[in-house]
Amino acid sequence: MKRWLLLLSIFVCLPAMSDEGMWMPIQLPEIEDELRATGLEIDPASLSKLTEHPMAAVVDLGGCSASFVSPNGLIVTNHHCVYGSLQYLSTPEKNLLQDGFLAGDLDEELPIGPGSRVRVTVDVTDVTKKVRKGLDELDGAERYDRIERRRKEMVAACEEDDGHRCRLFSFYGGLQYYLVKQLELRDVRMVYAPALWIGRFGGDIDNWMWPRHTGDFSFYRAYVGADGKPADHAESNVPYKPKHFLKTSPEGVEDGGFVMVTGYPGSTGRYRLAAEVENTFTWSYPMRRKSFDRRLEIIEEHTKDRPDAKIKYASMVGGIQNANKNTQGMLDGYARSNMLERRRALEKELQAWIESSPEIRKKHESSLRDLEALIKEQQSTRERDRLLVALSRSTLASTAGTLYRMSREKELDDIDREPSYQERNWPRIKARMQRMDRRFDPRVDRALWHDAIVQYMELPADQRVPEFDKFLKLGKGVDGLEARLEKMYEKTRLDEQDHRLELLEATPKQLEASEDPFIQLAVALYDFRRAREAKQEAISGEFNALRPAYMETMLEFLRSKGRAVYPDANSSLRVTYGTVKGYSPRDGIVYEPFTRLEGIAEKFTGEEPFAPPAKQMELIDEGHHGRFSLDSIESVPVNFLSTVDTTGGNSGSPTLNSKAELIGLLFDGTYDSINSDWDFDERTTRAIHVDVRYMLWVMEHVDNAHHLLVELGVPASM
Amino acid sequence: MKRWLLLLSIFVCLPAMSDEGMWMPIQLPEIEDELRATGLEIDPASLSKLTEHPMAAVVDLGGCSASFVSPNGLIVTNHHCVYGSLQYLSTPEKNLLQDGFLAGDLDEELPIGPGSRVRVTVDVTDVTKKVRKGLDELDGAERYDRIERRRKEMVAACEEDDGHRCRLFSFYGGLQYYLVKQLELRDVRMVYAPALWIGRFGGDIDNWMWPRHTGDFSFYRAYVGADGKPADHAESNVPYKPKHFLKTSPEGVEDGGFVMVTGYPGSTGRYRLAAEVENTFTWSYPMRRKSFDRRLEIIEEHTKDRPDAKIKYASMVGGIQNANKNTQGMLDGYARSNMLERRRALEKELQAWIESSPEIRKKHESSLRDLEALIKEQQSTRERDRLLVALSRSTLASTAGTLYRMSREKELDDIDREPSYQERNWPRIKARMQRMDRRFDPRVDRALWHDAIVQYMELPADQRVPEFDKFLKLGKGVDGLEARLEKMYEKTRLDEQDHRLELLEATPKQLEASEDPFIQLAVALYDFRRAREAKQEAISGEFNALRPAYMETMLEFLRSKGRAVYPDANSSLRVTYGTVKGYSPRDGIVYEPFTRLEGIAEKFTGEEPFAPPAKQMELIDEGHHGRFSLDSIESVPVNFLSTVDTTGGNSGSPTLNSKAELIGLLFDGTYDSINSDWDFDERTTRAIHVDVRYMLWVMEHVDNAHHLLVELGVPASM
Repeated sequence: MKRWLLLLSIFVCLPAMSDEGMWMPIQLPEIEDELRATGLEIDPASLSKLTEHPMAAVVDLGGCSASFVSPNGLIVTNHHCVYGSLQYLSTPEKNLLQDGFLAGDLDEELPIGPGSRVRVTVDVTDVTKKVRKGLDELDGAERYDRIERRRKEMVAACEEDDGHRCRLFSFYGGLQYYLVKQLELRDVRMVYAPALWIGRFGGDIDNWMWPRHTGDFSFYRAYVGADGKPADHAESNVPYKPKHFLKTSPEGVEDGGFVMVTGYPGSTGRYRLAAEVENTFTWSYPMRRKSFDRRLEIIEEHTKDRPDAKIKYASMVGGIQNANKNTQGMLDGYARSNMLERRRALEKELQAWIESSPEIRKKHESSLRDLEALIKEQQSTRERDRLLVALSRSTLASTAGTLYRMSREKELDDIDREPSYQERNWPRIKARMQRMDRRFDPRVDRALWHDAIVQYMELPADQRVPEFDKFLKLGKGVDGLEARLEKMYEKTRLDEQDHRLELLEATPKQLEASEDPFIQLAVALYDFRRAREAKQEAISGEFNALRPAYMETMLEFLRSKGRAVYPDANSSLRVTYGTVKGYSPRDGIVYEPFTRLEGIAEKFTGEEPFAPPAKQMELIDEGHHGRFSLDSIESVPVNFLSTVDTTGGNSGSPTLNSKAELIGLLFDGTYDSINSDWDFDERTTRAIHVDVRYMLWVMEHVDNAHHLLVELGVPASM
Repeated sequence: MKRWLLLLSIFVCLPAMSDEGMWMPIQLPEIEDELRATGLEIDPASLSKLTEHPMAAVVDLGGCSASFVSPNGLIVTNHHCVYGSLQYLSTPEKNLLQDGFLAGDLDEELPIGPGSRVRVTVDVTDVTKKVRKGLDELDGAERYDRIERRRKEMVAACEEDDGHRCRLFSFYGGLQYYLVKQLELRDVRMVYAPALWIGRFGGDIDNWMWPRHTGDFSFYRAYVGADGKPADHAESNVPYKPKHFLKTSPEGVEDGGFVMVTGYPGSTGRYRLAAEVENTFTWSYPMRRKSFDRRLEIIEEHTKDRPDAKIKYASMVGGIQNANKNTQGMLDGYARSNMLERRRALEKELQAWIESSPEIRKKHESSLRDLEALIKEQQSTRERDRLLVALSRSTLASTAGTLYRMSREKELDDIDREPSYQERNWPRIKARMQRMDRRFDPRVDRALWHDAIVQYMELPADQRVPEFDKFLKLGKGVDGLEARLEKMYEKTRLDEQDHRLELLEATPKQLEASEDPFIQLAVALYDFRRAREAKQEAISGEFNALRPAYMETMLEFLRSKGRAVYPDANSSLRVTYGTVKGYSPRDGIVYEPFTRLEGIAEKFTGEEPFAPPAKQMELIDEGHHGRFSLDSIESVPVNFLSTVDTTGGNSGSPTLNSKAELIGLLFDGTYDSINSDWDFDERTTRAIHVDVRYMLWVMEHVDNAHHLLVELGVPASM
């Protein structure tokens, strides 16, 4: 236990204090006073209109955010958001990822491959009434089905407008629903990326760390057909003309200056109950750490001295390590905070408010207690749930499951299908079947699965899955399991791409007759899995009744205290604001808000990830600051810290000044902020941005991207 | 290579800029203006008188510094300086080291055991002329002998004054000599030490680190006979009444405030030549790192699952780890500085100055070149020198060497003996023979020796020692060596304390007849060793001619530029001044000058070294700052950084304010400062002090040492 927690008076954590808050654009007029007090100079109301400047300039890359920065469809985002494109475009002979890339003109811009998408939000409709109508009468399972059907119907209707993708978002745990319609641009091209060890300077070592010196920026361009409409890649396509784009301000921002970030934050848990916080931080995250470590060990053991296998699992290993560091950051943050005590105190205060008057009591009496009870019920099977999920850790087993499920779903009308098996998602499933080989090695796959099965076997017999036990002859324990798995891996043909694609077209009958052991297992488990899914859907349906009720209580309570309340992040477009500001991560140390060019030279080793191009090092050694210097730090600012409230998905978001001009890109948070997904601590939660002045300095001096500077409105002659 | 070095213009490093300088007290009037400009409020001349306040209050503990802080002989120094005393006084039943100790009154104060010494400097005489007279005529060996004889004569004459210890110090590499006379108080008692994890909070983890939160202070008291003269411990002794003592200022100091440190810094190499810098940092330190790592490995291997052996080597392991971290700090500091380039530039400039006029040339023409040539000559045998030294790594082998050498030295008149074998040092030799067992395990000793011998065998045959090779039958390599060593360890009786003490009285003849294999080896090697020693003495004598000449040149050169010049540290009393000041260890990070009580709670784990007493944690948790708080940091300052120039040996030095009042104790330097022994970099060189306000806070609130607060003149009622 870290004792200093006790120092903090146990104050109730009320959202929307200070710079906390990932606001829905429509909410911004509500917090107009705070925005103006912090320094916003434009009308807050202008930020709430999604089809106006500046919000219309912000786009969604799916997992990353980005923005238009020229009238010709030029898009700026993080280098780590275009990383996959650079990998795709690189060859051993021409390694764009390593060396960077700069198209000399439009003709040289490179299509980033199929599946690339830029989505521009064109409409957001409040559909709460339509979605929630009549739900109160239904039990969990029915409620779940009803919502899912309405979701599918609305999305289908919305997507009848060609070239658009639609999505139903639930806010406040299902209290409100919005249907978001996005224009989907399908021809995206690589325009400019700095060298790898500028764009990814510091690599995994510096990930989540401060001080930071990462040039995490790159440029795409969106193209459309000659008719101006979304089109697949074609020579004849032309640059997309966005209705609005962000103006780039080479002046940047000073310490203390107003900043604002618009983008698509993924997920937060700021309104989760104490019971959920406790379960997550004392059980889920520690279990996850253990499981991650175990998997890394197994992969390490079975890829040792096998370079090919190592490469196949490099991406998974990187992902696990990254998630592991994140999870540890969560746990560290939890350990030094009194989050749980504060959640409990908040719930106590909420309950007191509920009981403070007959009218309130009547409306909200059991909302907290009911939700709490459901959470406890759900948690009671957590160990089994975890182990059953782990059983799908074999790529072959999960592929077989997908194939058989696909054959069954195909027998239904599209509207009745599980959403991920609807026709609009078939290309994704096919792509997954195609690229499986690149990340699959039978020995590693088998070892991971074997480990999961051994752990599963620790469940009491009555919690195990009879179909699974029978199929793998687990009745008498794991004796002989290795040999049986070996046989399955020998016999299966699911490791052949053509065979998988063939099976994707098969009927249930054909698959049921298959001699492939993994297909047979998938068939054997199908009923159990569907039953389990139905049960989970029923629980989900129950949550869909209780969570909105609880959130309604919470919102009323918080509003009774005069607070505007933002919803948890859900991958929908949000706005967060704050100021440029350093912080003290611990007693005796201060993190300054800006890093400088010279810090790159301090970290320089000549070896990755600290190996920027020689030219950059020469410029720094010569003290070549040029026109993008910041007087107060006597250098070009590389990265900066701010108090804005962000999370994963915000990567690539434009950072705007008080006039909504581009002055940087959000690309990370500090290690001390990881925990802010659950608990925003204004003393230590900081986002990390790449400064526009560094972007422009690299473009002008390192990469001679003068024509792009002109396109950005920052020509050398200015 | 760290590239940022190139950024720094290669400026010549001139000593005595800014706060650099470990000044001899007599030099202080020379830098009066700088002292006053930095903030000194008393007359600088008063600091140059060793028998006056405040210098007379500063004492020497041998390896540590300390000071009188009451008229009753109360002495304050670092906790790590009294650590050995606390170990000596601790028993499993009453663990003073762990729990701390506070004597309720004089009667409860505990004698810290034989060998304890407090030395008060009473006289410093310039004896340069006496020492150097006629040396110019002599060759290296003669010169060495003449200096050593004069040293012994002067020390003997000086020590005829009972109760005094004298020492001849050479300054500027032998350009000046001073004879220092110290009153030696032999009855020293433990008065007060805080609990271990206050006094050593952070332990090895925080060693050399910032931010720091270590309560590194403790109190002794010096006693004398009823007649006021130095005496061995006796019940009838009374507290020593120092002529002067430091006044304690509970106000402490602010950021930017003047501070001054007086104490006994051990050794620095600020005037070493580029050739020596290069050799040290590109050969000696890297070799040392390798050797340390190897020894740690061997000890680890041979103490594994052997708790007794582990305990015996714990101290050596700790020492090696500490030295290893220091060496790495040296290398890191070197890597990020351009020290070597600057030394070379300095020497170039010096040579240009030498050649700038006929008079200068006449006097100094070859001083740099001659010294450089001697250095190169010495370095030509560095590998052999290193490996021969390593051969003494066996405690048994070195003990045998000491015993036989002792028997031979005893045959000489005392004045003719090698200084360490003079009668005044016999108690030390005996003590070493007595305590050997506690740090010796035959298996580990043998393994370390075996490793050293195997390395030695890589020397070309003509560089090896025939006597050694013959004795260990190494003619055909190391085959059978293990077995031969095993036999030696079986046969020897040097592992018996009584036997060792007996042999300490033996004559050469008796030892030459001994059947103990280690004694036999010592006898066999004696002539070789003496010849080697004579050769080293001759080189040393040559250095004694060339180094002073070089330093004279350097001093004249620097003075021609208007600079006062301090000599390298040599364990003599020095004064350094500066200001309280944080720094930036690297881009984007600032180390604040003060740490706070709350930082202790941040680091708290409940396990050593972060396990302060529960009472302290309660007080911190309650925000109990009391009267010793510093407004600007809203807490009690625990440790602080300053720009003073210190090194090992300064530990325990009082930190004084502008009025020469006690406001803390020097106890460490930052990791970035380790390299300052060679190269003072004002941007990053910082000393770490424990703040007097934290000392008083712990005494008042944690340990209720109210009577000591009264004795310090800081009673609770003030």
